[in-house]
Formats: sequence, structure tokens, C-alpha cells
Amino acid sequence: MLIALAQINPVLGDLEYNTGKILEYINKANAARCDLVIFPELALTGYPAQDLLLNDQFLDAVEIKLQEICLVIGDTGVILGVPMRGINGLYNAAALMYRGKLQYVQYKSLLPVYDIFDEKRYFEPARERKCMAFKGNKLGVTICEDIWNDKDYWNRQRYDIDPLEELVQQGAEIIINLSASPYHYGKYALRTDMLSKLAVKHQVDMIYVNQVGGNDHLIFDGSSAVVNKVGTLCLQLNKFAEDFVVFDTGELCKRVLDETGHEDISWVYQALLLGTRDYLYKNGFSRVLVGLSGGIDSSVTAALATAALGPKNVMGVSMPSRYSSQGSRDDAGLLAENLDIEYRLLPIENIFKAYTELFNPEGRSIMDLAEENIQARIRGNILMFISNREGQMVLTTGNKSEMAMGYSTIYGDMAGGLSVLADVPKVMVYRLAEYINREREIIPQSVINKPPSAELRPDQKDEDSLPPYQVLDQILKAYIEEIKPINEIVAMGHSRELVLDIARRVDAAEYKRQQAPPGLRVTSRAFGSGRRMPIAQRWRFK
Amino acid sequence: MLIALAQINPVLGDLEYNTGKILEYINKANAARCDLVIFPELALTGYPAQDLLLNDQFLDAVEIKLQEICLVIGDTGVILGVPMRGINGLYNAAALMYRGKLQYVQYKSLLPVYDIFDEKRYFEPARERKCMAFKGNKLGVTICEDIWNDKDYWNRQRYDIDPLEELVQQGAEIIINLSASPYHYGKYALRTDMLSKLAVKHQVDMIYVNQVGGNDHLIFDGSSAVVNKVGTLCLQLNKFAEDFVVFDTGELCKRVLDETGHEDISWVYQALLLGTRDYLYKNGFSRVLVGLSGGIDSSVTAALATAALGPKNVMGVSMPSRYSSQGSRDDAGLLAENLDIEYRLLPIENIFKAYTELFNPEGRSIMDLAEENIQARIRGNILMFISNREGQMVLTTGNKSEMAMGYSTIYGDMAGGLSVLADVPKVMVYRLAEYINREREIIPQSVINKPPSAELRPDQKDEDSLPPYQVLDQILKAYIEEIKPINEIVAMGHSRELVLDIARRVDAAEYKRQQAPPGLRVTSRAFGSGRRMPIAQRWRFK
Repeated sequence: MLIALAQINPVLGDLEYNTGKILEYINKANAARCDLVIFPELALTGYPAQDLLLNDQFLDAVEIKLQEICLVIGDTGVILGVPMRGINGLYNAAALMYRGKLQYVQYKSLLPVYDIFDEKRYFEPARERKCMAFKGNKLGVTICEDIWNDKDYWNRQRYDIDPLEELVQQGAEIIINLSASPYHYGKYALRTDMLSKLAVKHQVDMIYVNQVGGNDHLIFDGSSAVVNKVGTLCLQLNKFAEDFVVFDTGELCKRVLDETGHEDISWVYQALLLGTRDYLYKNGFSRVLVGLSGGIDSSVTAALATAALGPKNVMGVSMPSRYSSQGSRDDAGLLAENLDIEYRLLPIENIFKAYTELFNPEGRSIMDLAEENIQARIRGNILMFISNREGQMVLTTGNKSEMAMGYSTIYGDMAGGLSVLADVPKVMVYRLAEYINREREIIPQSVINKPPSAELRPDQKDEDSLPPYQVLDQILKAYIEEIKPINEIVAMGHSRELVLDIARRVDAAEYKRQQAPPGLRVTSRAFGSGRRMPIAQRWRFK
Repeated sequence: MLIALAQINPVLGDLEYNTGKILEYINKANAARCDLVIFPELALTGYPAQDLLLNDQFLDAVEIKLQEICLVIGDTGVILGVPMRGINGLYNAAALMYRGKLQYVQYKSLLPVYDIFDEKRYFEPARERKCMAFKGNKLGVTICEDIWNDKDYWNRQRYDIDPLEELVQQGAEIIINLSASPYHYGKYALRTDMLSKLAVKHQVDMIYVNQVGGNDHLIFDGSSAVVNKVGTLCLQLNKFAEDFVVFDTGELCKRVLDETGHEDISWVYQALLLGTRDYLYKNGFSRVLVGLSGGIDSSVTAALATAALGPKNVMGVSMPSRYSSQGSRDDAGLLAENLDIEYRLLPIENIFKAYTELFNPEGRSIMDLAEENIQARIRGNILMFISNREGQMVLTTGNKSEMAMGYSTIYGDMAGGLSVLADVPKVMVYRLAEYINREREIIPQSVINKPPSAELRPDQKDEDSLPPYQVLDQILKAYIEEIKPINEIVAMGHSRELVLDIARRVDAAEYKRQQAPPGLRVTSRAFGSGRRMPIAQRWRFK
């Protein structure tokens, strides 16, 4: 069989656009005389459509579009991910359509409700699994989570059933998996390894078709793949971009990729570009504003935005105060020059003075927390003022380590439409900076070298308030991503006092994070829907 | 049997405090020589503990506290709601303890994942249901959702099984339900009616014990109740306050309450007081700041805060601009006088001028959206400045109709720790104002009479930008709470153009709402975790 993989980037809820895109790829497959073209999970709606799926009018429109697509399908069969209403409710379905007709439907069996997933909120699970007979082949069609429950591969089985095993027992020769599997750093290696082990165990070819694109905080990496029954990766589609590849199932045993993907910091870089671009475009924006402090976070954010959107669509705004060092001012300007972006200098001194005159008896600064925060808030206001007047989206620049510790000003540096680095730990921000500078110095070396500072009071340094980032990031990863007990984190070589202090500060900053803009997810556990914590709670680790 | 109902208000995650509270009520029941005392669902941890439940160290601590409680239990049996680890994972459990021993455990069978609920994220469902034999009685113990699946009472069955029916078939004589059932306006009548119908249908006494208290956006109303087997409400505990009541099961057939609850606007009022008070106290705050514009929303917010916290703990801040009418300035001052709260007057003119000088070539106002928003943001900054310096929490004052339409300034009037009216539609805000003025004029009549205005430009009125609130609120309720198709909303008597415009504006404001502070939930569908929508989506109703 000649099979095409259509790794598309749908726009959430834009059925018109997505249908057009699907028809375009069906035509390509037709033109290549393919037997079958396979699309990702929920390709027609985008993933996750969330509570749009509760609206019957939306589901009616989905049905109409599915019929429209079905009618034009000829000799190239199509497997498409789509929500479908059944007897017991809504299903996350894979529809096999051929010659104008819906031939088979397989619903998703395993519905994840951990991390960022809420699938049981929307979908009923499949009650049975059947192979699809197509042109003399027995296809075992699964959807995303359906193949992530192998009892040998994982320490524990999350679900009672194993759809993959069932389909193989029914005689499936090819396992097809439609996915919308969000990216995080390290996932690619895990996924490829698992696909390979499953193929060998069950002696089947595995075809994995993943969605690509950014949807709010989630980034889908694509990286669709085919693994043959001896576990060799024989086909690998683009990462972080749409792709379309045709292959012959008869040739799979002979294929070996010369080079398989090796996940390094460039993947995070590409993920952030895609996430930024899609969040902008899918929201109808094309231009952004970044406040440039001369520090590492805003420099990396501006460099990412410039790579994602082009220099004409990025404006850097420097908003120095009396506490801004000359070095920082120079670095901000130099960065803008290196990036070739528009640059504005708007000192905040007069506005700051208007506040101190309102609040301080003698009008002089007394340098308390209120005055530190007001500086950040004036900057947030200036950016939003330009945004409201000129129509750019403001990007915030905080990183995950700061967001974790609440080392940020709510309505100040946290004000904006998208937080590009919200899930990037500080140490990884430096790695991104090095990657950005891989060919020439874009981020001035002095930005990378100087100790991080918020510059909200004289001689302030991050390390006055925070442990060294190398240490902090290790503890944060264990606490947030791995949910390790305190004893285990201490056993990694940290003092109990420090670990408890960090845990306490992470918990206390929950109220800030719940008012943060969406942050692009690149780790296995990001703040937001992947980590749902109450604000008014008093659990304290010991 | 002499049974005590212990309607407590636990603090999320504060196992020490909750254990103390539980022991205190066990002692009361002991002193009253009760046979049994019943606590609400997940009383030991509070509800919803969210991702705290993913942490093994937290669950270890819960186990230790449960043992501690168990050991002191004597001749008064205790039924307590608590998370429990079992063979297949974590369960939402009801534990019957007696004479120092855990006698029976019943896990929750039906785990809701709609609206604000995420229970399948944390819990496994019970695989079986068994009556508990206790002092010669067969008790059928259920947890919250377990009794909300009667096939006769509801049009559809959400779940395959009906735990209540099973327990009755096993011979249960008394049905006990441990709940943590969040309040919304109208729920009390529904719940009471359902309890009564179920009691009659199954010919059993129903004992319903609900949690009370505010946890972030959720407010639990308590209102625990006993309904006898002929469907009569014989016992009704406090609403919106802790309570402890002892009754004799042998007497139930004779009891009829003189007066049953009738839900009116006073319930919403009490819900908001409890929600405000608990959010403050449970977060370690005691004082609040409210920006007083002289409008209805800030007046009602300040009045609610004063009733909740006492006048000494509320400060009103008036921040007039060049566009503030004299009437509004006077009304703000008069309100503060009527409430007997501290009042500060901080005009924003000088700060506003510092912005226009920075941005406008001739320093003069050009009255665009950027300048409208900066006024609101300066006010937000002033409140946060006072908060940072003096330690009060800022309450935001926007109502549900505004939040729906995006008729608010992000980082401006949306800046604060808690939004008291976020789920109160504008028309209901007026009903609250009337209720607040029921005995004497607290909110000046002129505030109630004048047409709503944001006063961000000369002669601005809400109705320049929004339909009349009577119409708007009807459409918003149908669209947001009832998820009605557009055709049905139009059929209620509205123009299609208007309905589509409102739907579009609600969808477009999603980005603002996702950066809003928690808002107290008083309707059947609030923004936040009860309505999960993507931001970057392009579905448009037709």
C-alpha cells in the first residue's frame, strides 16, 4: 500500500480553514495515487477544543464539514481524527472514509485526565476495538493514549485495557496511531523508543501521525514517524512544521534512516518559535512588543520573537529607571541593533516621580517593595499603552524559575499576552542564549556574563533573594515536574531548610501564576492546566 | 439511633487545623451521647485539594492524621470523608470508625468531571458498594455525586450505575450522603426537591451532610438536611455557616420543619460574604482595599466587604480623573461615610499627565483607547501600591456581564486578589444593592439611579458600548450558563445580529478572563474552571 502521512497544523475551531487544509492534503495524496492518507487526532477541530465540544451547534458544524470531506473522497482512502456523537455521548474518533463513504469508525479507548488532559470531560471511551479491513490489509487504528499503556514498557498500567494488544490479537498487521501529543523537552526520545519496543513486541509496523502547531500553551511537535516490525525507525517527518510524506508499506523492511533525531536545545528553540508564531497568528496578531531590560530573559525573548516573526514585527522598548545600570541600558540598545528591530527609549523617571509624590510625604523614594513593584508596573503600563495604541501584542519575559518563586511583579513584568519563557528554567534560558549566538553574537556577551538583577533598587542581585540558579533549577524540577517528596530532594544533596523554603515560596506564589498570561510548555510539567493548585490552602511540607 | 451532623468548614490542606476541628466535633457528639457523627466529603483535606492529592507526602500525612483521629474514637461512631490509597490508586472515601478502629470504608462510585469538577484526575471509582452494619442498622453510605444519577429524576443518566439503588436493594434503611457540593443560586431548591423524591421513591430516610465554606472561587453552602422516607424535610442545618445538630432517627417520621428555606437574593449575599471572608482568612489576610468609583459595582463590593470583614478592615479609595463627574466623587465619599470605612482620595491627574507627556507629542490627551485604559491601570497601580505598602488585599469590582463582554481593563480594574462580583450578572448586582439597602440607605440612591458609566472619557455611558443590561444578561445566561444554540437564543426574542455580536465579544475576551483573579461562583456556570475555553481559536457562531 502507498500511504501518505498528512502532518497538519489545524486552527482550533476554524472548521472552514481546517477543512480546506484537509482537502488540500487529500488532493496531494490523490495526485500521488496513494491508497490511504492519514491525518492526526481531532484534525478537523484542532486539539484541545475544550468546551467548544460542549456546544451542539459546534458539533453540528463539525458533522457537516465531515460530510463535505467524505463526499469528495475517491480512491484514496482517508483516516481522519474527528469528534463524533454516538449513542452514549461524544467520542474522540478515527474515521476511515473511502469512495464517498464512511467505512469504519474507531473511537478512542483510553482517555487521559492527568497533566494538561481533560478528555473524560468531553468524551466517552470506546467499548470495543475492531480492525479495519482496507484493500486487503487489516489496519489496527488507535488514537494517541491508546498505545501508551503497555504493561511491559511502563512500570504500571494506568488503564485496565490495552487497545494495541487487542488489535494485534485480532490480527492487525499495521498499527496506525493518530495523535495530538504535546511536546516537552525529552519526549521525542521516549516516544521513539516506545514505538520501537512496541513494534518489536507485537511484530507490527507502527505508523504514528502527530499534529503540529501551537495552541495556547501547548506546542505539538509533529515528528510523525513510521517504525517497522523489527523496531527500526524508517520514516521521520518534520518537527515543528507541517509535512507530507508518501511511503510504500512493502518497502518498510528495507528502510533505515541514516540519521535519527537527537533532541538538543535546538528543539526547545524551535518549539518556542512555533508556539510564539502560532499564538500570534491564530489570535490575529502579527507584531509584538518586548520590554528590554538589558537582562538575559528579555534578550532571549526578543531574539526568539525576531526569529519567529521577522525583525519588522518586533519592537524593543527600553524603560530605564534611576536604578538601571549604564551597562543594562547599553546592552538593550545593542541587542536591538543586533536584531535589527525597532527600538524605543522611554525612561520611567517622571511617572515614577508622580507616584512617589502622591504617596511619600516628602516625595522622595523610600525604596520599599511598593516602590520596587511600581517601577515594574509602570513598565507594564507603558508596553500596554503602546499595544493599545498601535496594536502589537506584548510578550512577557519571565522564566520558569522566577514564575515558580514568585520573583516577578504581577501587573508589571507579568503583563502581556504571551509568556514565551514561562516554562523555561533559568539555566535553560542561558543555553538558549548560547544557541541563539551559535553563529554570531546576537545577545551581547555582557548580558550573558553579568549576574542577573531586577534592578529595582540599588545594587540588587537575584542571588540576594534566590539561591544560585543551578541549585534552584534542580530543586524546582524535582518539586514541580517530578513531584518528589521533600526527603528525596534533600537526599539529592540539598539542605532541608533550603528545599522547604523553596517549596513554601512556590506554593505562596500560586496567586500570581493564576493571573499570568499563557506560557509555552516545554517541560513535562508546566504551570497552568498541567499543575492545578488551590490558592487559599495551608498545606506546608516538613 | 442518635445521630450528629457535623457541618464543618475545613481549610484546604491544613491537616492540623482540620483534625482539631474534627476532634472538637467528635467530642461534642460524644458529650451528647450520640451513636454516630457524620462529617462531609473529604472533610479532612478540604475540597477540592486539587494537585495536592498527587503528592505522596501529603497523602502520607493524611493517613497519619486519620489514624490519630481513629484512635480517640469511642462509643460514638464517626463517618468521615477522606482520600484513601487503595490497590488501584486513590479513592474518595467515607470511613466508618468506631472504638478506635476503621470498621468499613465505602469509596465514591460516581466521579464528576464536568463543570468545575476534575475527580477522575485524582480518584479511581469504587468497584462495589456495600451497606455498613452499625448498631443494628444497615447504613447505605454514598458520597456526593453518587446520589445524583437517578434515572427517573433526570432526563438522562450520566453514569451506568446508580449506587443509591444498589444500596437500597441490599436493604439499606438509611441513606447517608457526604457532600462537598458547591453553591449556585437556585441549587438549594433543586437539591431539596431531589432528596425528597429519592426518599419517597426508595422509601428510605436520607441524611445529607454538606461541607461549608469558601475555597478560592467555590462556595459551599452547608444546608445539610435530613429528609424522612415520606419525603418530608425534617431537619435543616445552617446555610453558609458551620453547624452541629443531633437528632433521633426514631423521631424522623414525626418531624416536619415549620419553615423550609426559600432561596432569594439574601442567599447570594450570604454566599458572597462567606466566600470573601474565607478567601481572605484562608490566605492569611484580614483587610481589603476597594477602589470606589461612585458606581454600583464598587459600591456593592465595598458594602459586601464591610459586612464580611467589619468596617475597620475595609478601606475605600477614590481615584478621580478629569472625566469623573462630581456626582460620582460625592457618591464615593458618601458611601464610605455610610459604611463607616476609612476613605482616601487620590486623584490620578498628575500621573495621567506624566503618561500623556511621555506619549503625546504635545502632551495633551487625545482620548483614545490607550488613554482610557491607562486611567484604569493607574488606579490598579495605586491600589496595589497601597496593598504592597500596607498589606491589604485589593478586591476587584467587575461583574459577570462586564467580564463576559471584556468591558474591563486588564491590569487596571481587573487587578486584585479576589473578584467578589465576577459571577454576579449586572442585573443581580442591582438586586444585591437593594438588599444591602433593605433597612437603611447604605448605597446612595443616586448610585442606583444613575446610568452605569466607566467615566474614562467625557459623557461615556455603558449603553454606548453594550446593550441594556436586562437584555444582555438574558442573552449571556442562555449563551454561557445554558450553552444554548444561537437559534434558540434568537427565538427567545432577540435579534440574531445582537446575539451573534454578544457571542463573538464573549469569545474574544477569553484572554482577559484567563488573567483575572478568582471570582466567587454563584451561578450554575462561572468563568474559570467551570468554563474551559481556548484563547487562540477561531470558531464563530452563525
